Amino acid sequence: MMPFNRRDFLSTAATIGAASTFGVHTSLAAESKSTVNFALVGLGSLSTNQLAPALQKTKHAKLVGIVTGTPKKEKTWADKYGIQKQNIYNYETYDKIRDNEDIDVVYIVLPNGMHAEYTVRAAEAGKHVLCEKPMANSSEECRQMIAACDQNNRKLAIGYRCQFEPHHQQCIELARSEKFGSLKAVEAGFGFTIGDPNQWRLDAKLAGGGALMDVGVYALQACRYLTGEEPQSITAQETKTDPKKFAEVDETITWTMKMPSGVNCFCATSYAFRGVNRYHAYADKGWFGLDPAFSYGGLRGQTSEGAIEAPEVDQFAAEIDAFAKCILEDRESSVAGEEGLRDLLAVEAIYESIQSGRRVDL
Amino acid sequence: MMPFNRRDFLSTAATIGAASTFGVHTSLAAESKSTVNFALVGLGSLSTNQLAPALQKTKHAKLVGIVTGTPKKEKTWADKYGIQKQNIYNYETYDKIRDNEDIDVVYIVLPNGMHAEYTVRAAEAGKHVLCEKPMANSSEECRQMIAACDQNNRKLAIGYRCQFEPHHQQCIELARSEKFGSLKAVEAGFGFTIGDPNQWRLDAKLAGGGALMDVGVYALQACRYLTGEEPQSITAQETKTDPKKFAEVDETITWTMKMPSGVNCFCATSYAFRGVNRYHAYADKGWFGLDPAFSYGGLRGQTSEGAIEAPEVDQFAAEIDAFAKCILEDRESSVAGEEGLRDLLAVEAIYESIQSGRRVDL
Repeated sequence: MMPFNRRDFLSTAATIGAASTFGVHTSLAAESKSTVNFALVGLGSLSTNQLAPALQKTKHAKLVGIVTGTPKKEKTWADKYGIQKQNIYNYETYDKIRDNEDIDVVYIVLPNGMHAEYTVRAAEAGKHVLCEKPMANSSEECRQMIAACDQNNRKLAIGYRCQFEPHHQQCIELARSEKFGSLKAVEAGFGFTIGDPNQWRLDAKLAGGGALMDVGVYALQACRYLTGEEPQSITAQETKTDPKKFAEVDETITWTMKMPSGVNCFCATSYAFRGVNRYHAYADKGWFGLDPAFSYGGLRGQTSEGAIEAPEVDQFAAEIDAFAKCILEDRESSVAGEEGLRDLLAVEAIYESIQSGRRVDL
Repeated sequence: MMPFNRRDFLSTAATIGAASTFGVHTSLAAESKSTVNFALVGLGSLSTNQLAPALQKTKHAKLVGIVTGTPKKEKTWADKYGIQKQNIYNYETYDKIRDNEDIDVVYIVLPNGMHAEYTVRAAEAGKHVLCEKPMANSSEECRQMIAACDQNNRKLAIGYRCQFEPHHQQCIELARSEKFGSLKAVEAGFGFTIGDPNQWRLDAKLAGGGALMDVGVYALQACRYLTGEEPQSITAQETKTDPKKFAEVDETITWTMKMPSGVNCFCATSYAFRGVNRYHAYADKGWFGLDPAFSYGGLRGQTSEGAIEAPEVDQFAAEIDAFAKCILEDRESSVAGEEGLRDLLAVEAIYESIQSGRRVDL
């Protein structure tokens, strides 16, 4: 969103010697290719139902490798996607990916609490990293991930698919162009009723948090990319109506977030109800927004002057292709690690405000 | 909303002697009538465009008197509504209304900062009082108004028209019946772009506050009547993008509000943008809400299972008739002074949270 000069400087400086210094294959071959080769790390629902199919539609990215802890999946995936045997890894052989020139990027699709470790290890193995949101369990982990990618001269991007989706892009453009005047407020919320009480998303160590970390991040991101600003102060409250199911993580959180320009945001996230999947941006001469906003497809946009018309795209394919192009053209991603870090800083402020009962100034 | 036994007790106890004790005409004649006679106090836009026309449609209430500081309006209104000369007052003759048995109720439509004084004087003159929202500039004033009406055995109601509107009533019923399961969150907001910078609404002494007092109260009320609960804790933030226009009162406020059952509310109000005029209630098996919610007409309701169908009514006529029936049947109003007081307590907590940067526990 905003220029981040330190990062630009670091990545330029790092270009000079990182690859040889660390003595690993850095897949620089990608620079002369038109396609970047991806390995998916973690073959759960998102990889199975969204990412692998998306990688069949990408122009600049190809699925060539997998990392899985489930031996049975090795054959299924090899058969379905023509994965070569030498491109199949498990969590014990993961670091050997450094010897594999065929793989340019790993896409980390593990539980949140494993993002930092597997990103750092991938960077040290000379691989670029696309990491699912939320970036990590804490801002400290985010910084470790950014540093590891910087030190190894590898690119890092976070799986913020919405920023590559045309309805969202139109809303961002409506905000930037001040088509409806200057932005005054944003309402954003995303929640759903979570099922299986034994899933990793309800485990604090693996998930880092509850609804806020998983889906609240979409609402938070929306406030940030619509305004192009970072929150200046945050207040928040949490409620837990099922203390057993949500013993370790947050159930429902509402929060307010004030931006430096004066835009005032009011947001919600929950694991206890569905139907909130939207944002509305209010400007002094009109409004615009999406509802549903954060689904994989079927988004609908409205403005005070009529509907938003935008094409339906595979958001994951768009996100993956965008990162592949960054690698091919040696550009920084617009959703680089710093973008994930900024979200985690706001997430931590929300949790801090809940704990302290105070407004947290950032 | 909720039973308020102290009040019931006081008003029963007061019935015995108040009228004779205070030596004023208390219009007890109303008890044997089928119609209650109203005088409008303050003939601004609301009285002119909404209340007087509504009083032509009421079944149990009749417009018989006016109180105005503008001599020119005396004749216009007398001609238009057949107001008798002896039922026309100005602010110097206001207290003489005590000698007028023709007037049962005064409807206070003055700027907020004058509500307390004119309510107390009306009660002391033996008149029942319907007072526009917000009830007063402070909870202290609300208490004075309640006490004055109690002491004079007069009924007091606040102009909460939405509680008498069928779409809102259906939403309240959907919440109470738990048709969509147990309520988890409410999003509510009301704002508009305020015009003339010299109007009383931007004057702290007359208005008591800005957007929150004027229209935020609708969102606050909605959270309260949908949940049937009083807020337990509140956090809030204010932004002012036009510090000159909003030198004395608030421009835009967002707030969170947690109810004892765990319902978590996220709300907004503003004088700086339009388009937010809605509420959505999220329950564990579905959702329902209105958008627009707080307009005088044309309300639209949706639920997760389809549209809310409800008749269009004159909300002011419904509100006035409801109070008239309370008087005729000697019942307490469902929107009695205590209802206004509860809103002011929450409003004060919102302002306190903005000032202190802390969550305010109520």
